[in-house]
Amino acid sequence: MPNITPLNQILNADIQSIIDDKTKPVGSLGQLEQLALQLALIGQQKQQCFTSLLKIDLAKPRLLIFAGDHGINEHNLSIAPSAVTGQMVENFLHGGAAINCFCRTNDILFNVIDCGILSKVSNNTSDDSLLIEQRLGEGTADFSKQPAMSITQVKSGLAFGQQAVNKVLEQGCRLLLLGEMGIANTSSASAIMAALTEYSVEECVGVGTGISAQQLENKVRLIEQALTRLPNNCVNVDTILSEVGGFEIVQMVGAILAAAENSVPIVIDGFIVSVAALAAASINKHVADYLIFAHISQEKAHQLLLAKIIPNDNIQPLLNLGLRLGEGTGAALVLPIIQSAASFYNEMASFDAAGVSLSE
Amino acid sequence: MPNITPLNQILNADIQSIIDDKTKPVGSLGQLEQLALQLALIGQQKQQCFTSLLKIDLAKPRLLIFAGDHGINEHNLSIAPSAVTGQMVENFLHGGAAINCFCRTNDILFNVIDCGILSKVSNNTSDDSLLIEQRLGEGTADFSKQPAMSITQVKSGLAFGQQAVNKVLEQGCRLLLLGEMGIANTSSASAIMAALTEYSVEECVGVGTGISAQQLENKVRLIEQALTRLPNNCVNVDTILSEVGGFEIVQMVGAILAAAENSVPIVIDGFIVSVAALAAASINKHVADYLIFAHISQEKAHQLLLAKIIPNDNIQPLLNLGLRLGEGTGAALVLPIIQSAASFYNEMASFDAAGVSLSE
Repeated sequence: MPNITPLNQILNADIQSIIDDKTKPVGSLGQLEQLALQLALIGQQKQQCFTSLLKIDLAKPRLLIFAGDHGINEHNLSIAPSAVTGQMVENFLHGGAAINCFCRTNDILFNVIDCGILSKVSNNTSDDSLLIEQRLGEGTADFSKQPAMSITQVKSGLAFGQQAVNKVLEQGCRLLLLGEMGIANTSSASAIMAALTEYSVEECVGVGTGISAQQLENKVRLIEQALTRLPNNCVNVDTILSEVGGFEIVQMVGAILAAAENSVPIVIDGFIVSVAALAAASINKHVADYLIFAHISQEKAHQLLLAKIIPNDNIQPLLNLGLRLGEGTGAALVLPIIQSAASFYNEMASFDAAGVSLSE
Repeated sequence: MPNITPLNQILNADIQSIIDDKTKPVGSLGQLEQLALQLALIGQQKQQCFTSLLKIDLAKPRLLIFAGDHGINEHNLSIAPSAVTGQMVENFLHGGAAINCFCRTNDILFNVIDCGILSKVSNNTSDDSLLIEQRLGEGTADFSKQPAMSITQVKSGLAFGQQAVNKVLEQGCRLLLLGEMGIANTSSASAIMAALTEYSVEECVGVGTGISAQQLENKVRLIEQALTRLPNNCVNVDTILSEVGGFEIVQMVGAILAAAENSVPIVIDGFIVSVAALAAASINKHVADYLIFAHISQEKAHQLLLAKIIPNDNIQPLLNLGLRLGEGTGAALVLPIIQSAASFYNEMASFDAAGVSLSE
């Protein structure tokens, strides 16, 4: 059981008064103010012994893109064959994908983690740290017929995710961004969501990157079939991940738990990463304190899921741009907004300091 | 009458096919794809004679913050006295305001333009280009009693706005961001909106940065009073600006027209800048082709206004973060998203180039 400290809400009032004393009308920065409060609260967790409020530290933001293949795609549940997972990982390595463009624009370092792509990808770029091999197999098994992976693979996956995060934290990263690549991974994500929530499989399934009505129907049926293998009202996350998980999803669960354990905020991308966040929060609910949801994706199930995992009074997803790509694109796009929230909290002048007075 | 060329929509299909051939599912970048299309179309306008499609060029984005005071604030329509306009401009010059933090985070150069603050602000920073003096007076007249400014001041203001834009375009700027500062300028903006649309004054008036119900009622009454001076169904923008305009608003109208005339896209911030955009589009409707709306502000009238000026099939505002500050903060926050749209269009690999194939 990971040791995750809930945020020390007793500091809320002190942090809020710093925010309210900035040279702007109270509340006028909207969601950025809530975000600054969350980030500042997280920042205080690092103090062994509380002396005074620390500034927000988002040094060296790092995007980890977890990639894996899915046996369930034998049933043609995606617009693309499984080979595209590996092809897109090569595209990431060579800088040609959407996520590369956004990382360059926003100055984000990334790593791609091969969690179990069908065939190994070789990194023939000059940067040999770009690709991290943490393979759990050559794609998961077809979960409509058998467990996607063994419990041992689940446990290895959680440890791999933790290991990847620990490595970037050692390199000074104080803000983690998560993304994923895996043809047919919405099938696994929908199945996990259906297992962990009261939503029906139909509600948890979306059109993914754009499948047909026939494929959609098939997807629902295969997931329902798989879920009959779970014990009634099963809440054991390891079991659920073993039955219907994906190698990249399992490793993301481990990554989220590790970042939260180290009091590092985590930027959650779209539907698949949100499902990993749901699984992590089902293992330890305090994870939720460390999550920032980048965006609401076009995937309708994502909207249901977010309503489930974000308490009403918490910060809602920051962007709503109709994205449905994955790769961490939403997380990368939202980074400057998160950095802006930190910068106004850290750097903006108070009324006194700036000589601004609202009274006549 | 400014000479603004409508976008050459005949290129739509060619640009769309470039976007669709990028290594991602068709449409999966949502609003960023629409934005890339708009930016690419704007970019082609620069070609005297069309040969092949140009990349999107957003070099040297520049934020111009137009500041001015409002005689109407004698009636105590804001949470702050008019002196705060000058105090905040000093805050901008010294780097202490929210907009400074966001400009630093997103690497945006800015200038503050004194369009007619009550008392001159002196720039005692080391950068003497930060503050531009284009004063039309010492605040506008109280428009509840008399025209806010003369027609001559309106014409000078439009020319000043154009002049400021021409200067930054000469310096290589290919993307203009607009922001404003002016205590009580929502009163002027609401009055202009009511004059130029079919909305009632009540619908055009919001709580601004946070005024009381009494102040709100007063604001509506004073604006209604002022608008009775306009001829019935007056659509003459100069007349409207003269009666109820603001020095910073008039100059922004000139700035928007000038940027559009030079085929430079313009990022519109919140309610006040949107009203300037409405006025500019009322002078020349083709302006609309060059506008990018940064965000939907909390000001309810902003939502009505946007519904009015953005055709249904156009790009909707990119952010919805509950902002209600002004200063150009929404525009500054959205810049990386605009740059990301350009970067995927310019740099992302096609399926062929990346060796990614969706067929088995």
